[in-house]
Amino acid sequence: MKRHFEQELEGLKTNLIKMGSIAEESIALAIKALHSRDSVMAQKVVDGDARINTLEIEIDNAIVDLLALQQPVAVDLRLILAAQKINNDLERIGDHGVNIAESVLGLLKLDPYDSLLEIPKMTTVAQDMLRNALDAFIHQDPRLGRTVLEQDDGIDALNRAMVVQVVELMKTDKNAIDGGLELIRISRNLERVADLATNIAEDVIFITQAKVVKHHAEERG
Amino acid sequence: MKRHFEQELEGLKTNLIKMGSIAEESIALAIKALHSRDSVMAQKVVDGDARINTLEIEIDNAIVDLLALQQPVAVDLRLILAAQKINNDLERIGDHGVNIAESVLGLLKLDPYDSLLEIPKMTTVAQDMLRNALDAFIHQDPRLGRTVLEQDDGIDALNRAMVVQVVELMKTDKNAIDGGLELIRISRNLERVADLATNIAEDVIFITQAKVVKHHAEERG
Repeated sequence: MKRHFEQELEGLKTNLIKMGSIAEESIALAIKALHSRDSVMAQKVVDGDARINTLEIEIDNAIVDLLALQQPVAVDLRLILAAQKINNDLERIGDHGVNIAESVLGLLKLDPYDSLLEIPKMTTVAQDMLRNALDAFIHQDPRLGRTVLEQDDGIDALNRAMVVQVVELMKTDKNAIDGGLELIRISRNLERVADLATNIAEDVIFITQAKVVKHHAEERG
Repeated sequence: MKRHFEQELEGLKTNLIKMGSIAEESIALAIKALHSRDSVMAQKVVDGDARINTLEIEIDNAIVDLLALQQPVAVDLRLILAAQKINNDLERIGDHGVNIAESVLGLLKLDPYDSLLEIPKMTTVAQDMLRNALDAFIHQDPRLGRTVLEQDDGIDALNRAMVVQVVELMKTDKNAIDGGLELIRISRNLERVADLATNIAEDVIFITQAKVVKHHAEERG
């Protein structure tokens, strides 16, 4: 029974890592489509959302089965409950990839923008945070999780700077308004990806802290 | 043990209903502050967010305890897993209340807008959806849950109409740009509240469908 449980837990982790890869890929592809002004690529991100939604439901069902059949407690229980949250967070990151891709499709109907302003920098930070959060989960590494938390203020500041810059452009040229709104939308969605990476990192810290708590309790017991 | 479990489950439901009330209140107060141009009221919403965050953690901890100590299966297990999701959705609705209140504070620094366009209509629909989703959860009523799902397209359409109207205003008057961005932000946040109400309704349908499945299995058994 114990070995079976370990296997199921490994299977759950593997599926979450797969989900994380698809979510990362969705963001990367949407931003690549933005740089290369590639509507086919952007549409591919929009169409790919069904896959991540299906995997989310599969993982949720696996979680129900795991809890019902194995009735884990303590650290394992917290890990599985955190897995449900992380699953949901990753699905939402996929949604943000779709939102970005939709904005790219909107931008491609307009004249090319001179500059993407803070978007390349924000993309690098958001992707780095997501990668670190997923690595922190894979290796159950709270130290790495904490670095993600520290990165979040930086991206919030970039998002605010971005809005100020776009508003300035809009005020000097009303033809920049439609495209400017799409750039703000992309910026906001990247900022939300960073928030969700932060959520995942917090869950990793929560799981590993529970380990520490359990450890101390065992020592006392 | 059984009676104790029922009590804990009732306690969990009661806390979620309390969380729902606070989330509803946050949206209602933020929109009231918008209409009455009341910065003190808007600030109250921003400051009130700590309360909903604390309650979210309390509920999450109660869920861990309930699963660890009672090890429920089938319908009860699905109800508790759905409760974790609903808890998170309600916390996010509180965040949207804060976002709206922040936009109100932004708007109050500018000249009053002539019209709030689709915002009053969107508020009515979003609040109605949230109320119905919470009622569906309280009474475990999938029929009411389905009415929430049907309302979601309407608010998406209002949000799109809103953006078109604001962009038109921005293009004719560059002084409308700053306020217009805040109105779009409020509109988008109301649309997200409606999405989250839809999530809650879907969870209620999921729980009650599991009941049906269990019922059939028992009949066969």
